Amino acid sequence: MRHFLTLMDFTKDDILTIIDHAIKLKANPKKLLHDKTLAMIFEKNSTRTRMAFELAITELGGKAIFLNSNDLQLGRGEPIKDTARVIGSMVDFVMMRVKNHDSLIEFAKYSKAPVINGLSELYHPTQILGDLLTIKEWGKEKDNNVKIAFVGDSNNVCNSWLIASAILGYEISIAIPENYNINTQVWDFATKKSEISGAKISLFHNKFDALKNKDVVITDTWISMGEEKEKENKIKDFAGFIIDDDAMKLANSNAILLHCLPAYRDFEVSEAVFEKHSKIIFEEAVNRLYVVKALLCFLNKNL
Amino acid sequence: MRHFLTLMDFTKDDILTIIDHAIKLKANPKKLLHDKTLAMIFEKNSTRTRMAFELAITELGGKAIFLNSNDLQLGRGEPIKDTARVIGSMVDFVMMRVKNHDSLIEFAKYSKAPVINGLSELYHPTQILGDLLTIKEWGKEKDNNVKIAFVGDSNNVCNSWLIASAILGYEISIAIPENYNINTQVWDFATKKSEISGAKISLFHNKFDALKNKDVVITDTWISMGEEKEKENKIKDFAGFIIDDDAMKLANSNAILLHCLPAYRDFEVSEAVFEKHSKIIFEEAVNRLYVVKALLCFLNKNL
Amino acid sequence: MRHFLTLMDFTKDDILTIIDHAIKLKANPKKLLHDKTLAMIFEKNSTRTRMAFELAITELGGKAIFLNSNDLQLGRGEPIKDTARVIGSMVDFVMMRVKNHDSLIEFAKYSKAPVINGLSELYHPTQILGDLLTIKEWGKEKDNNVKIAFVGDSNNVCNSWLIASAILGYEISIAIPENYNINTQVWDFATKKSEISGAKISLFHNKFDALKNKDVVITDTWISMGEEKEKENKIKDFAGFIIDDDAMKLANSNAILLHCLPAYRDFEVSEAVFEKHSKIIFEEAVNRLYVVKALLCFLNKNL
Repeated sequence: MRHFLTLMDFTKDDILTIIDHAIKLKANPKKLLHDKTLAMIFEKNSTRTRMAFELAITELGGKAIFLNSNDLQLGRGEPIKDTARVIGSMVDFVMMRVKNHDSLIEFAKYSKAPVINGLSELYHPTQILGDLLTIKEWGKEKDNNVKIAFVGDSNNVCNSWLIASAILGYEISIAIPENYNINTQVWDFATKKSEISGAKISLFHNKFDALKNKDVVITDTWISMGEEKEKENKIKDFAGFIIDDDAMKLANSNAILLHCLPAYRDFEVSEAVFEKHSKIIFEEAVNRLYVVKALLCFLNKNL
Repeated sequence: MRHFLTLMDFTKDDILTIIDHAIKLKANPKKLLHDKTLAMIFEKNSTRTRMAFELAITELGGKAIFLNSNDLQLGRGEPIKDTARVIGSMVDFVMMRVKNHDSLIEFAKYSKAPVINGLSELYHPTQILGDLLTIKEWGKEKDNNVKIAFVGDSNNVCNSWLIASAILGYEISIAIPENYNINTQVWDFATKKSEISGAKISLFHNKFDALKNKDVVITDTWISMGEEKEKENKIKDFAGFIIDDDAMKLANSNAILLHCLPAYRDFEVSEAVFEKHSKIIFEEAVNRLYVVKALLCFLNKNL
Repeated sequence: MRHFLTLMDFTKDDILTIIDHAIKLKANPKKLLHDKTLAMIFEKNSTRTRMAFELAITELGGKAIFLNSNDLQLGRGEPIKDTARVIGSMVDFVMMRVKNHDSLIEFAKYSKAPVINGLSELYHPTQILGDLLTIKEWGKEKDNNVKIAFVGDSNNVCNSWLIASAILGYEISIAIPENYNINTQVWDFATKKSEISGAKISLFHNKFDALKNKDVVITDTWISMGEEKEKENKIKDFAGFIIDDDAMKLANSNAILLHCLPAYRDFEVSEAVFEKHSKIIFEEAVNRLYVVKALLCFLNKNL
């Protein structure tokens, strides 16, 4: 049985199979998971992940159970390993959005059902699947390569994009502030994997170098859930990192903008640029539904 | 595509069609919305609206997703227009219970799915549909007229009843305290529409004049959700507005009492009068289920 | 129509019928409650009860509605009898987890649908059904008798086990602290019922006497939901009541340990003993699903 905690454990073939299947399911919906059940455990707010997972299993013929961790005994201190042994024995899939990635690892260790990462502070792998589907649909993959700039914070979306690019052999430039670092485990994985895949990974501390010659621009909020207290400092750190009209001009002329949402206007992205690219950004959001469907089928060996 | 934000946008024919269909669906349930999906977004507490919508779509063969706005990114400040572009693209219907009616208007502007008002501070249109069904079933419509008294606060239920009466050509008397006013937009709509429909609309500042010669008495809580701090003042304002035995004697002898619930005993209604009319009041509550079913079918052009 | 508020209202035959049916449904799932609806109202946190009920009705072909009492008008002070007359008229079953057992009694009085106790401060009857199934599967019922020790607090699980043992004619020893008492109504029921059933009920204030010669050891948290403030005192009261290796040696050599979870290690049970018996304890948790299925069918006269 395979879990889906980080893309690190997935091969290029796995990922491409999921994306291909998502395209097929989008064109031709099928009830491939009849009567299957999915428990969704949320420790943080969610709009797209919640909608995508609940609709995915429903439209595939199954049933989702939404569990706010505050409503569970987990919220009163029950050990994760006990909750995992109960919930993981009663359903076919478990999705978790957690404050600490370690909770996912611990849950997966004790769960009889596959566990899917619906966002941790370290990774956001289903988001990257949705992005990949969108990039493919918009024709930004050329000769098995995608030229990507990620401008933003060095956390979950950044990490998962580094990992995905390394596995898939893409070209990615990351722009993060001077005093920010990439997680060592992620960086080591990405650099090693790139030697095999031919991926080109670069790290910058300004957006200008990162955006040059890119077809896909990705940004994300500077202040993640739980970091509200650090808001003032983070805004200082990210001065000059906004994706505005001038920034987009640094990328290739037909470059697209991706954003996992929610978007904070005039912080990481200007209102004008956001709305100019809103068609693709909201397609990206809705594409989560199709990649989650494909992922569930994949984990169920139904694909 | 039509939304259902206020009855103002609906014709007499539309409303009668929905009520007629509700009667048919009550007698003979049909799975007319197979595999359709409904997102329900709640910014406030709900019992009847929640149950009615979740059961309606379920019993019609579809699926509801319950979203407490606190669990969404909306609860962390995501703009309504972004949430609308995501959720409104993923489901077939959206129902919202909002603190500010403007949220509904903004959501509807950006949603690809029909948006239904499940209560705003200004309107409560599905409640009036439920009331209309109940009035019809209890034979209180005579010669295409219903003689109605509304005694209570000049907000959502009052507004929606004024609009409905004006469209349907009914006779309605409103009793609100001296220093209270009817929303100008509602009053203008109602008076203009009455000229065409033949509705008779009167406004009083005491219950005695309003109740005279009426077959249907409607009241509602004096302290709406969010007004808990104004409780003391509002109780003073509404002195003398209680519907008790003496008040009911002012109406016609077989007059029925409607209440959208929750009911606060010995404030807007006495315990004795409430319990005397409890059979019809709880039928009114359960009728929400059937009118919501009919409304969903109507908006889906499946009726 | 029968409710399921406490096992007191059920006969030996009723209980055995439900357990037998649970065994059959576990081996051979059937959609016996097609299109039936269940409202689940929670005033407290829940993991197992929530999962068991939501999955039970779903897998039987029906639909659950999860209602956190804070989201209902009930959470704003609507009388239980009004909520009961609405919700109890719209669904086929109601499950409630309540702070005060009286809420269940009041709801049942006004509900047109059967009401099921999903935990009150006084009783936890579906837990005992799950325990009974587990005891039967593990062969601890011999000659229509089960030898049980309950070591812990004299509240819901203890009460429901006393009642069940008295009805079924089992042998049960209870160990509670010196200054603790058994609820008078429960004790009177249990002692009277035992005269008919042949049950042997003993009360001790130490674990040694209670555990002697027992095949099934049951414990439960010392600090129930809502008692967090009394934690320090209760820990003092329960000094010497822990089920550890030494305690288990007092019972019969193949004795099993049951725990309704969540388990607080090194309070009511040692980590070593808990993990040694974890296979059965988590089977006990998952068995809730099958007994709830059988219970729903029983109440629906579909069994």
